[in-house]
Amino acid sequence: MKFATLPNGSLDGRLVVVSKDLTKAVDATLIAPNLLSAVQNWQEKSADLQALYDLLNAGKVDFAFDFDPSACLAPLPRSPQWLDASAFINHGKLMEEAFNTKPIPDFETIPVIYQGASDDFQGPTVDIPMPSEADGIDFEGEFGVVMTEVPMAVSVEKAANTICLIVQINDWSLRAFGPREMATGFGFIQAKPSSSFAPVAVTPDELGDAWCNGRVNMHLNVTWNDQRFGEPHGSEMNFSFPQLVAHAARTRKLTAGCIIGSGTVSNKSREAGSACIAERRVIEKIDLGEIRTPFMRFGDKVRMQAKFDDGRDGPFGVIEQKVIAN
Amino acid sequence: MKFATLPNGSLDGRLVVVSKDLTKAVDATLIAPNLLSAVQNWQEKSADLQALYDLLNAGKVDFAFDFDPSACLAPLPRSPQWLDASAFINHGKLMEEAFNTKPIPDFETIPVIYQGASDDFQGPTVDIPMPSEADGIDFEGEFGVVMTEVPMAVSVEKAANTICLIVQINDWSLRAFGPREMATGFGFIQAKPSSSFAPVAVTPDELGDAWCNGRVNMHLNVTWNDQRFGEPHGSEMNFSFPQLVAHAARTRKLTAGCIIGSGTVSNKSREAGSACIAERRVIEKIDLGEIRTPFMRFGDKVRMQAKFDDGRDGPFGVIEQKVIAN
Repeated sequence: MKFATLPNGSLDGRLVVVSKDLTKAVDATLIAPNLLSAVQNWQEKSADLQALYDLLNAGKVDFAFDFDPSACLAPLPRSPQWLDASAFINHGKLMEEAFNTKPIPDFETIPVIYQGASDDFQGPTVDIPMPSEADGIDFEGEFGVVMTEVPMAVSVEKAANTICLIVQINDWSLRAFGPREMATGFGFIQAKPSSSFAPVAVTPDELGDAWCNGRVNMHLNVTWNDQRFGEPHGSEMNFSFPQLVAHAARTRKLTAGCIIGSGTVSNKSREAGSACIAERRVIEKIDLGEIRTPFMRFGDKVRMQAKFDDGRDGPFGVIEQKVIAN
Repeated sequence: MKFATLPNGSLDGRLVVVSKDLTKAVDATLIAPNLLSAVQNWQEKSADLQALYDLLNAGKVDFAFDFDPSACLAPLPRSPQWLDASAFINHGKLMEEAFNTKPIPDFETIPVIYQGASDDFQGPTVDIPMPSEADGIDFEGEFGVVMTEVPMAVSVEKAANTICLIVQINDWSLRAFGPREMATGFGFIQAKPSSSFAPVAVTPDELGDAWCNGRVNMHLNVTWNDQRFGEPHGSEMNFSFPQLVAHAARTRKLTAGCIIGSGTVSNKSREAGSACIAERRVIEKIDLGEIRTPFMRFGDKVRMQAKFDDGRDGPFGVIEQKVIAN
């Protein structure tokens, strides 16, 4: 199934089901008023939503309308928790060099996760206001999962069964604040403005074989001001999403609708490029002896789209945003 | 005004106004269905709520009922963000010794804040399930503030005007995870189970002179298994709540209903005792040469109540909880 959220004046927006080819949509509020509600009542609602999705794909739905991604909010405009991992260790190791921070202990055996703001997620095409170009404005392309309720101390096996949706994320970052906030040990506040989401959240089956080992085995194609920036592949994630869910729920329940992010998608091969500027900068420093790429300026645009290995467009739609002055 | 939240099957509960002496309550759902909604519409709703509060205090409300704190949920059972500072530097410095972590840079000039779970706050008297006694189960007595919407990059002066409610918190902590999670730089996930709240949220005017310089100038009396543990005073907070709000909103909007905590209330004088076990333990190590106090065991009880300087009970009611096995 594919879902999107349209504005209706409420904090959660209204739920629409989107056709497999992303061309059509249909209001689903008679089944669940919004996507958060659908996830909260997943056992009860998913069969009805699947039936509506099947009818839509068969062209048998009255009141279907053209799907307009630019009208969409984030699939979940607010979520109970936004937990963002750093599960691509290649990225993490490069960032240690970029930030000149101490190696994270047990980084290859214990997941690392920060909690970010989940009350004001941005839609896929809105302009993103930032306070200052001096803050080191950066994008971070990621994949993420949405869970039904996760009980405290869940096993990895049971955690896998709580994953009901997959999403694509731009985790906006302000690099000027990162090293200092990491040095506090308390994690990121100023370094992490509200994140943006691609318009469509999908059930894992929509990925076919690309949902494998609890990972999104797809490329994330990133362009910056219409220039190719990278297309790293999700298969190199060092922890699976079920492992991340179990880690996050070790000592507390996660209520339905929480989101866990992979952290910046990152590959060992230099040919893959990067999904954030900070990573490219540290690679430049290592490979070329100097940083050549500046961070974003007001007016800059970033575009992110997942691609299957055979080149087909991913199911999430496109993030395409411009940074503006607050 | 004083507010509490009773269960009604919804995630936000239902709003009641509580009398000044905490003996009576009245349903307020005709004004706002829940406290989050009231805070989201504070400009529009607060005058009506004040009128109801005044009538209740005058004994002129039909359908008033006896206020039962043990029936209460947290005033906000869920909140858009839970941002917990470490604004008592005395505590922070002691914790650096307890955790044997590096000094936090700029600790005395820049606030330190982590973001914790805000989707499953616990009520004042429910039993608290924890996975293991080996995790170093600890309480942390704090004060906190609830804000209306805070715009990005707000000034400290304007931040002060967004503070609409004051709350009392037990920020449950699992000390076994703390040092490792701090060393990641990503902040606390497993070290911070869901926090608990005293039953009553109050407007700043309810504190009278005890709301001063953006701080809660009251004692927080803590007992552990009915033994006195400490009564540190809120006046020694090194950053004011408006300073903390402005710091948290530097690069992102905080939607209405976010909560900022002070961190463990802590005083330089050893005679004040402590509001968490970890602090007592490190004081024992410093003053006595050895740690003598263990962390909590299943079945242990903690009680927290704010007190005015003249000895009167604070307006928040009492947190009184037992730790149990999950």
